Formats: sequence, structure tokens, C-alpha cells
Amino acid sequence: MDQKDQPDHPARVQISPDGVMTGRTGRYTKHLGDMDGVYRDAEAYRAALAGRGPDELVYQVDSQDYGAHEGALTIGTSTLLPGRYGQEFAVTRGHLHRIANRAELYHCLSGHGVMLLETLDGQTEAVELTPGVAVNVPGDWIHRSVNVGDQPFVTLFTYATDAGQDYELIARAGGMKTLIVDDGAGGWKAVPNPDHRGYTESR
Amino acid sequence: MDQKDQPDHPARVQISPDGVMTGRTGRYTKHLGDMDGVYRDAEAYRAALAGRGPDELVYQVDSQDYGAHEGALTIGTSTLLPGRYGQEFAVTRGHLHRIANRAELYHCLSGHGVMLLETLDGQTEAVELTPGVAVNVPGDWIHRSVNVGDQPFVTLFTYATDAGQDYELIARAGGMKTLIVDDGAGGWKAVPNPDHRGYTESR
Repeated sequence: MDQKDQPDHPARVQISPDGVMTGRTGRYTKHLGDMDGVYRDAEAYRAALAGRGPDELVYQVDSQDYGAHEGALTIGTSTLLPGRYGQEFAVTRGHLHRIANRAELYHCLSGHGVMLLETLDGQTEAVELTPGVAVNVPGDWIHRSVNVGDQPFVTLFTYATDAGQDYELIARAGGMKTLIVDDGAGGWKAVPNPDHRGYTESR
Repeated sequence: MDQKDQPDHPARVQISPDGVMTGRTGRYTKHLGDMDGVYRDAEAYRAALAGRGPDELVYQVDSQDYGAHEGALTIGTSTLLPGRYGQEFAVTRGHLHRIANRAELYHCLSGHGVMLLETLDGQTEAVELTPGVAVNVPGDWIHRSVNVGDQPFVTLFTYATDAGQDYELIARAGGMKTLIVDDGAGGWKAVPNPDHRGYTESR
């Protein structure tokens, strides 16, 4: 971890409820073709891929940081487009922080979503987010955004820049323990994922 | 710093644009009588005190945290009511984090304010905040909120819970180096504070 000789210069950013951050230092995008293996219903995913093509945007993350020195924060927005793959709602890949005790704030700016949270030892929580609702994701919780609405689901996030992300943990476990699916009545429900094999730490 | 045996249970909070946080674990309030010595124009402050009384609310901070263990974040809202003391706009006391390298996000939810930032060696920055604008306050910057509007100035904040706050540094220096004052044309400007003696670290 770097130590700074000189304080960083304060950055002002403008955050639109549609997720675009003016003054960002980074952006990454995920497209439909990047989501292979993420959804349980492989046939539904392949059908979506055939119909919409691999280059369709599925989510976008804007961020601003000063580098990963001690005490620094990354701020940003996550914009997850709506979608359905079989019964499952659209999700982000999800991650545990590489420094697992690092917490993360998610504050919903627009849309309707769920923050799905799981611990390595099998606790699971689904926190519903609508504009103005936030979740302080504690350290040691794997977390993923789920869009259960029909509009983009946008959150403002903040985490310690040194936290890092482990994106492989979920794939190695056969997916998260819980799936967020259509409840058949216009809403969502959390159901067990029969393919989940339990989490194994990378370290 | 505590280490956790068990992950904390994720907390969902609801944040109103007026600054009230449902699901908070803490709240503190500052009243007019607590602000003695903060404003340069002591006569204007005494007149306000005589007219409005020491118990009038001037700002309120709601917060949620899980305790100050490594990696934990505190999230919250700061609601600073409008006011004028001579030419100076209403301010919070301001602080440097006790662990000075800890950054802090401030995201404006409502009102019109300025985040006034200074380093120990005399750099100064004034970042204007309106709804949707945020500042990622880097480590090693003293910072204070200033309400330059006529409505409550509300920000969402996030910082590492272990950061702590040094509130005495500014008083010891004769106030911050910069004052945010009425520009005589309906706006604000930053002017030097003739009483500022330079910052001296507490450690």
C-alpha cells in the first residue's frame, strides 16, 4: 500500500440519477457476452445472446479514486440494466473484497433492486433497495446487485480503494447460494440455488 | 482496533433528502450555544444568541455504523441549517480525522453548500455542492460544511469508522485559514481569515 507524501487534490464529481458520473477517473462496462456462466438457466442465457447479441450493454460502473493508498476511498455509480434470464433477474457478477473485512456503502439513486449478500459460512440476506434506501455492506459479505424492476437500477457506492475484488469465488461455488427470481405475482423472491456447492476461500 | 469473529448483520437504512435517516444507530445535534468561538464576528454571534437562544438547533448528524473495527464504514447524513453571522455563512465545527489519512465522501442530497478543505501546510479549496454533486475528501484535509443557501444543506457521508475526528485543531489555529462569506451579490466568496495562525498538529 502506498503512503502519500502530499495530500491528493480534492475531486468534485457530479452524479446523475441515471448513473453517469462527471469527473470520473474510471469506467467499465459489461456486455451480455461477458455474463456466460452467471445465470443458472443456461438455455435462457443462450437465447438472450442469440436474440440481442454479445455486445449489448448489461451494466456500467463509473468511479473516481486517487489510487489505492491507505485510507483512500473509491466512490462511484453502478448502473444495472433490467433483464430476465428464465426466472432470474439481471445481476452483476458479485464479489467479496480481496481484503475481506472492507465494508461498502450502496445508496440507491434510481430503480428497484436487491442487494444479495452472503457469508462464506452460508448466511444469506436480500436487502431491497429503492431510491433513498441504502445498505452498509459489512466486511466479509459477498455481495451482488440484482435489478428486480423494469428500469435501470442505479446505486452510489463507496469503499476503501485498497479493498480489491474477488470475482471468481462465486463461479467456483456454482453460483451464489440464493437466487433472486420472479415470484409470479409481479415481485421477487429469494430461492435456494440447487447448484451452489459452498464457498471456498482463495487464500 | 477490534477484529470481528462474526460478520456484522447488514443494515438497511432509509435516507430522506431532508437528512433524516431511518435505521440510524446514532444522532447528535449542535445548538447555537455550542458554536461559541466558531464565527469570527463575535458580536454577530452574541446578537444571534440573544435573539434566538442557545437551544436553537443549528445542525444535526444521523449515522449508522457497526463499531470501529478494521474495514468498517460509518454512513450518515449531515443537515446544516442556513444562517449568517456577520458576513459569514453557517458552518459545522469542521475536523481532521484523528487517523488523518482517512478519506470521506460527501454527496449533496439537498440545499446549497460549500465543502471548505484545508491542509496543515496551508492549501485551501472550496468545493461547491448542490444536489447530485459529491466530493471525495482525500486524507489529510481538514474539512467543514458551509451552508451558502437559504434551505437546509444536507449531505450523505461515508468514512472509515476508525477514522475519528479532531475538532480542536481549528480552534487552536484561530479558525480555518479561509472564510466563506456573502459576496454582496447573492452568492458566496472565499476570503482569508486574518485571525488564522496556522495549524499545529495535536500529535
